[in-house]
Amino acid sequence: MAFQGKKLINDPNDVVTEFIEGLVETYPGLQYLDGFPEVKVVLRADITGSTHDKVAVISGGGSGHEPAHAGFVGEGMLTAAICGDVFASPPVDSILAGIRAVTGPMGCLLIVKNYTGDRLNFGLAAEQAKSEGYKVEMVIVGDDCALPPPRGIAGRRGLAGTVLVHKVAGAAAASGLSLSAVAAEAKRASELIGTMGVALSVCTLPGQVTSDRLGHGKMELGLGIHGEPGAAVADLQPVDVIVSHVLKQILSLETNYVPITRGSRVVLMINGLGGTPVMELMIATGKAVPRLQLEHGLAVERVYTGSFMTSLDMAGFSITVMKANEEILNRLDAPTKAPCWPVGADGNRPPAKIPVPLPPSLSTKSDETLSRPEQLSSQGYLLEVAIEAGATAVINLSDSLNEWDSKVGDGDCGSTMFRGATAIMEDMKKYYPLNDPAETVNEIGSSIRRVMGGTSGILYDIFCKAAYAQLKAKGKSVIMPMHWAGALEAAIAAVSKYGGASAGYRTMLDALIPASSVLKERLAAGDNPVDAFVLSAEAATAGAVSTKDMQAQAGRSTYVSADNLASVPDPGAMAAASWYAAAAAAAKSKSQAS
Amino acid sequence: MAFQGKKLINDPNDVVTEFIEGLVETYPGLQYLDGFPEVKVVLRADITGSTHDKVAVISGGGSGHEPAHAGFVGEGMLTAAICGDVFASPPVDSILAGIRAVTGPMGCLLIVKNYTGDRLNFGLAAEQAKSEGYKVEMVIVGDDCALPPPRGIAGRRGLAGTVLVHKVAGAAAASGLSLSAVAAEAKRASELIGTMGVALSVCTLPGQVTSDRLGHGKMELGLGIHGEPGAAVADLQPVDVIVSHVLKQILSLETNYVPITRGSRVVLMINGLGGTPVMELMIATGKAVPRLQLEHGLAVERVYTGSFMTSLDMAGFSITVMKANEEILNRLDAPTKAPCWPVGADGNRPPAKIPVPLPPSLSTKSDETLSRPEQLSSQGYLLEVAIEAGATAVINLSDSLNEWDSKVGDGDCGSTMFRGATAIMEDMKKYYPLNDPAETVNEIGSSIRRVMGGTSGILYDIFCKAAYAQLKAKGKSVIMPMHWAGALEAAIAAVSKYGGASAGYRTMLDALIPASSVLKERLAAGDNPVDAFVLSAEAATAGAVSTKDMQAQAGRSTYVSADNLASVPDPGAMAAASWYAAAAAAAKSKSQAS
Repeated sequence: MAFQGKKLINDPNDVVTEFIEGLVETYPGLQYLDGFPEVKVVLRADITGSTHDKVAVISGGGSGHEPAHAGFVGEGMLTAAICGDVFASPPVDSILAGIRAVTGPMGCLLIVKNYTGDRLNFGLAAEQAKSEGYKVEMVIVGDDCALPPPRGIAGRRGLAGTVLVHKVAGAAAASGLSLSAVAAEAKRASELIGTMGVALSVCTLPGQVTSDRLGHGKMELGLGIHGEPGAAVADLQPVDVIVSHVLKQILSLETNYVPITRGSRVVLMINGLGGTPVMELMIATGKAVPRLQLEHGLAVERVYTGSFMTSLDMAGFSITVMKANEEILNRLDAPTKAPCWPVGADGNRPPAKIPVPLPPSLSTKSDETLSRPEQLSSQGYLLEVAIEAGATAVINLSDSLNEWDSKVGDGDCGSTMFRGATAIMEDMKKYYPLNDPAETVNEIGSSIRRVMGGTSGILYDIFCKAAYAQLKAKGKSVIMPMHWAGALEAAIAAVSKYGGASAGYRTMLDALIPASSVLKERLAAGDNPVDAFVLSAEAATAGAVSTKDMQAQAGRSTYVSADNLASVPDPGAMAAASWYAAAAAAAKSKSQAS
Repeated sequence: MAFQGKKLINDPNDVVTEFIEGLVETYPGLQYLDGFPEVKVVLRADITGSTHDKVAVISGGGSGHEPAHAGFVGEGMLTAAICGDVFASPPVDSILAGIRAVTGPMGCLLIVKNYTGDRLNFGLAAEQAKSEGYKVEMVIVGDDCALPPPRGIAGRRGLAGTVLVHKVAGAAAASGLSLSAVAAEAKRASELIGTMGVALSVCTLPGQVTSDRLGHGKMELGLGIHGEPGAAVADLQPVDVIVSHVLKQILSLETNYVPITRGSRVVLMINGLGGTPVMELMIATGKAVPRLQLEHGLAVERVYTGSFMTSLDMAGFSITVMKANEEILNRLDAPTKAPCWPVGADGNRPPAKIPVPLPPSLSTKSDETLSRPEQLSSQGYLLEVAIEAGATAVINLSDSLNEWDSKVGDGDCGSTMFRGATAIMEDMKKYYPLNDPAETVNEIGSSIRRVMGGTSGILYDIFCKAAYAQLKAKGKSVIMPMHWAGALEAAIAAVSKYGGASAGYRTMLDALIPASSVLKERLAAGDNPVDAFVLSAEAATAGAVSTKDMQAQAGRSTYVSADNLASVPDPGAMAAASWYAAAAAAAKSKSQAS
């Protein structure tokens, strides 16, 4: 069944005038003639014909090929673009108006794609303009390589390669050359270009039904830019195969359309047909360049990838290969203010792109240095005791954590924390460098990350990495209590920043934030560090329990109603309070024992 | 029924690495880290971290949003882009590799779109990098305006507005500011931006089936950039209505997402979602600008239209509005080598685009001067006799022309020529300025064009315009025979050039080219002009008759087999020979009579 194609337009009859209105709103350097709806001409805002002291370069044709041609108007490229209705040649009066508006004493060059309507309308306008005293030359571009050499005058169709002729002619004109010299360069350039297209879908004209000419899994080869059927329909292939086929046809010695032979320098253009994402165009480019170099023995001097000459919303691309020499490359590289000429593609390409080696880590530690010290310092011993106590507490609490989590989340908080705590216990015995507290904290993060996964795993790793960076900045192996407090604060800040939660969001921070505040406060007040630690642990537990009364603002609990949350504490907060409190209690009993 | 989406790719698992390979082939200024397939990092080819003396600006995230983010790498914008798999956050090691590769002593700023995966992975990488001694800051962008203010940490999604933050931060970094200053500018910019999207189709992941979630005639409003369902599905509306709705939602005083009030200066971005042609984006722009100005009372300072942050092949667009001040505008206007930042959109916009008035014709004649002279000169009288004879001959031949044409074309050659000849006879009596041969020839062309239409009408008009330009260049009211011969030659050249036919193509040129040759030759030989005219007419007739043996190479006859053409002359050639010969005979008899 046929449906009208979906388009973001208003009246299908107004698409070209409304396109032009949007174009000039976007680009301050562009302007249009006051002649809607018949005269649709985009021109440089900075020149007027009577005073224009360079050759004007004018192109145009049917619309539906945007950004061609209006997007290539600008200093160094086109002086004006004459826009017909969609896929319809512009009328003579419109072309004449464009010529009159931008042509000065140096004259103008018309660059026309080889279609009968365009040839005749631009031709008549050219003759009329000449009779008014203007100097006018015309160059016709036919770069299609999809069809066998035609008999007679039909000739090869004008396709995306025309944009390269615009650039060469525009740069020649900007350099101050005479009309005949600019026309000669454009003509020469047009003879060096071959193009062929491939489509996955047929374009839909505004207000028309969408064609189902191309079925699922099919592609069309060698098509025109107006929805004309292509030379062949085939099963869709990987793009590498398509690119290879198209390049062979463009460079065919049988048709001999382009004078390119092994060793030639060439320019490559991969042109999207309107509905093709940049990703796919770039993939085609990545395959075309090595094929041109290795299979065809060509030096690829410039690559242009993008959507330059489209066919409304058609999905597909065309490939253009142009023979290049130093003069052509200079013209292509010359600066232009045309908004849709590709940027950053100019200049010599390195002979081969060798990727940049991966930079080394600046971390001073190496895996070999990681080992449990044979002899623990008193600080190292204290650390071991505290870690063991914290991990054990989490392991013991895991069933409760799962139970709470089954009411407010997905029920695996206890199991996840159990995995982390168990890994910490095992890894600590094997290789934690306990006499170096900073590195030990760092390794705790790595143990957690390795086994825990998910958001909680990465958040605890962030917690440890932030604490590690803070501790390490002190550059000492003996960490003072104030430094521990600072590390806790930095770790909480990192979790809050990257995770997005704050106090009151019903997360582990509701245990840790009160703990950090009290710890800092008590230390500042001169308390004994172990007592301050214990007091702060009480704050952690109180904070965790208080999450019963909080609305969830993070994680899966946000999807649970407040009623269901009311009697259950946040399991993440309870887990944090449990390891924190257990570590504090262990430090206290250790300090009393010693 | 569901079908696998058609894409121009190879292996769906390789799309990101192959995209990057094509990208660096296209842009010599870009390079990538040697870490495929896990590490997918695009960076500026011209810097290395250890010696980089500016703040590095790094962004990234899941792929499928091309050109974001890799296409915005370049001096003045991003220093590196970290690419995840399609719609998947990049792993921590990949982000770390990017940081290490481009970060120098000034540090680096990470700009991250607000998605949990990106926040955590970039966050962990940031903490790890800090622990290695790098200075790192991170700014999170959430510019979505489609949904009501979220509870808690989920926050607003990062959409196309992120690209504007890249530009502001990149320009600030390029100007040499410190990390904290660059981060502060990026943060401030991120708070001034609102975005909302509209889609006509759902994107298809590489290798996946195409979703039919959005039916015919439907659109989705307020969607994310990963194919997430939008806030609402509605019937497709004219784009003007869509734009109006989206702008109201972005600027809603209820959500108050962006601090924009009447009188504010703003920047507008119309961003294609991957499968939307430039024409449609520009139409949206053309509607959005006046609505912002007139309905919302805002000063639109810059407009960016294009595909910047896409969602694979999704058809649709997003609108971003950013509050701007002089500082922001300077950052947006600052030069950059990033290949996909829009060109030509910088600089102050004129307060209103008033189209350029249509330029006047330089033709010296005006319609008022056109009238048949009361008194004919002898040349004028001769011209009248010749024109009348030529037109009469064509009228008399019209049945034969139709008959021939019915065998080799569409059968209307005689009728078409009859219309032209009749119009010439009528117009000549009314207003041909017969004492001015050049203007008379010009008017013959206009008469023909007015009534004949089609290819033959425009070709005869071109014929007359070219002759007119040639005759007029002589600047004399009395035309010498050699000038008539020159005009004939120029007219034939124009028809051949624009129409594409040459001698032997079975067209009117097969009568006119021999006539022109003989005329020029006899005049050069010193023959009496009238005798030369008659001799050349014989050549015209012989040439026309000889078309019987020619293969058609132009027009509809190309579709007719050679056998069917064999006994029939080309009607166009016969018509040309008949008016030419009749005119010559009339001139001869006139000269004998006088």
